[in-house]
Amino acid sequence: MTSRIAYLGPPGTYSEIAALTFAHNLQQFKSHTTQLNPYPSIFQVLKATAENDTSFSVVPVENSIQGGVAMTLDSLWQLDGLSIQCALVLPITHALLSQAKSIASITTIYSHPQALAQCQQWIECHLPTAKLIPTQSTTESLQHISDNLETAAIASERAAELYNLPIVARAINDHADNCTKFWVIGTQESANGTHTSLAFSLPVNQPGALLRPLKILATCDINLSRIESRPTKRSLGEYLFFLDLEVGITSAKMQQALPQLQSCTEALKILGSYSFLAN
Amino acid sequence: MTSRIAYLGPPGTYSEIAALTFAHNLQQFKSHTTQLNPYPSIFQVLKATAENDTSFSVVPVENSIQGGVAMTLDSLWQLDGLSIQCALVLPITHALLSQAKSIASITTIYSHPQALAQCQQWIECHLPTAKLIPTQSTTESLQHISDNLETAAIASERAAELYNLPIVARAINDHADNCTKFWVIGTQESANGTHTSLAFSLPVNQPGALLRPLKILATCDINLSRIESRPTKRSLGEYLFFLDLEVGITSAKMQQALPQLQSCTEALKILGSYSFLAN
Repeated sequence: MTSRIAYLGPPGTYSEIAALTFAHNLQQFKSHTTQLNPYPSIFQVLKATAENDTSFSVVPVENSIQGGVAMTLDSLWQLDGLSIQCALVLPITHALLSQAKSIASITTIYSHPQALAQCQQWIECHLPTAKLIPTQSTTESLQHISDNLETAAIASERAAELYNLPIVARAINDHADNCTKFWVIGTQESANGTHTSLAFSLPVNQPGALLRPLKILATCDINLSRIESRPTKRSLGEYLFFLDLEVGITSAKMQQALPQLQSCTEALKILGSYSFLAN
Repeated sequence: MTSRIAYLGPPGTYSEIAALTFAHNLQQFKSHTTQLNPYPSIFQVLKATAENDTSFSVVPVENSIQGGVAMTLDSLWQLDGLSIQCALVLPITHALLSQAKSIASITTIYSHPQALAQCQQWIECHLPTAKLIPTQSTTESLQHISDNLETAAIASERAAELYNLPIVARAINDHADNCTKFWVIGTQESANGTHTSLAFSLPVNQPGALLRPLKILATCDINLSRIESRPTKRSLGEYLFFLDLEVGITSAKMQQALPQLQSCTEALKILGSYSFLAN
């Protein structure tokens, strides 16, 4: 059996590295052969799985420096029939790629806005006058350095190997413990796992409405490891809340909390119950 | 007296329109003359005010579609001596600017990633095959359309006037009630106002730690209009929380809540007490 896995392409992105990690795991434990399919946006990655074009999607959820990935959360709220199968945490180590003879001769740096932001202090220290130009992915930035000796790109070391480009500086991210959490998404409803993620909207114009679901979780002794708000897109000041809970969905605690959560939220969506893959 | 006002430039951005609205208000009510100074990043805008190079900064905080502006929240946590003076809400109406003879001949659209995202459905309907290219500001996208008949930019109608470029479609944003909240930041500690914004970190590894401050607010009958989490950048899973409260800082309710909040948070920062400017 061949499992197709969708990810935010092109090849060489950190999402591809996460997809490869998951694919390796599938091959090892379920003897599936795998095929990785790149898509140009996170919404299209998830839509491919929702429409059964691929068996799985691997999408970034949260970076330790930049925070939540809004497009992933918004798409999971919008699309139906998807469920988180597992989570994995990947260390992010940026390298500076360039054909320049020396770092000092670099005048322009291309990369994804998040990668540029994550290397801000390094750039200010080593290339303070360089022009920074955002691209749609770290891999796209490589196009700009192949025939220009004064430009550089920020990408992974894997991208450097894959596209045969020289690395002029390694581990240039400002925070050494930079890492990103990814979710593997499928269509099978997942019941096992040590974590549960859910999202809800609240009845409008009710002061203290957010307090009620949080109180239920505390009363049921469920630990909340993350809460993130996103606009409902109906009007300024109305939010969806995304919560990560440190408990499986079939646990007694969760089974006690769920009906109570349902009664105090407007709409409640279980995003999945899952465990973390060891890298 | 001339007040310098910093904003995310170049001229023609929505931040400039917000800065102009505030400047108009200053002139009318305080007889100040004003001078608008553009800066290339939100961090640099706020730093200019923290270092007294400008009297005020006008920065975007939250968009009704895209959500919070991470760079504004992170910079306000990092920089000292700044306080929110007032808030204003600006409707965001995007126009398509191009020298093309007809919309059908447009092959490439340039704009800020947020503007591209906010017009996604319009683009899919009218220009489904157009290539979308992100730029650092809506104004920067205008550079790409001055001498190419097949390109377009998404920007404000003000930008079209300012740079003398033709508008080929108006109000192309997918959600008609698209608006952005801006904060005016200064160095004077603000004590008046109907709203208070604050941020805090929590003691690590204490389950339910977020529940305590929210309970205090509920007990003191303070309505929470927004909560947003941002990573502390120390490790994945540690957050700062940014809260907007519908109460002034000198009110009895807030004076009752503050010492209690201080005792259950790790670090607590009052971002300001302020009212909303009528546009």
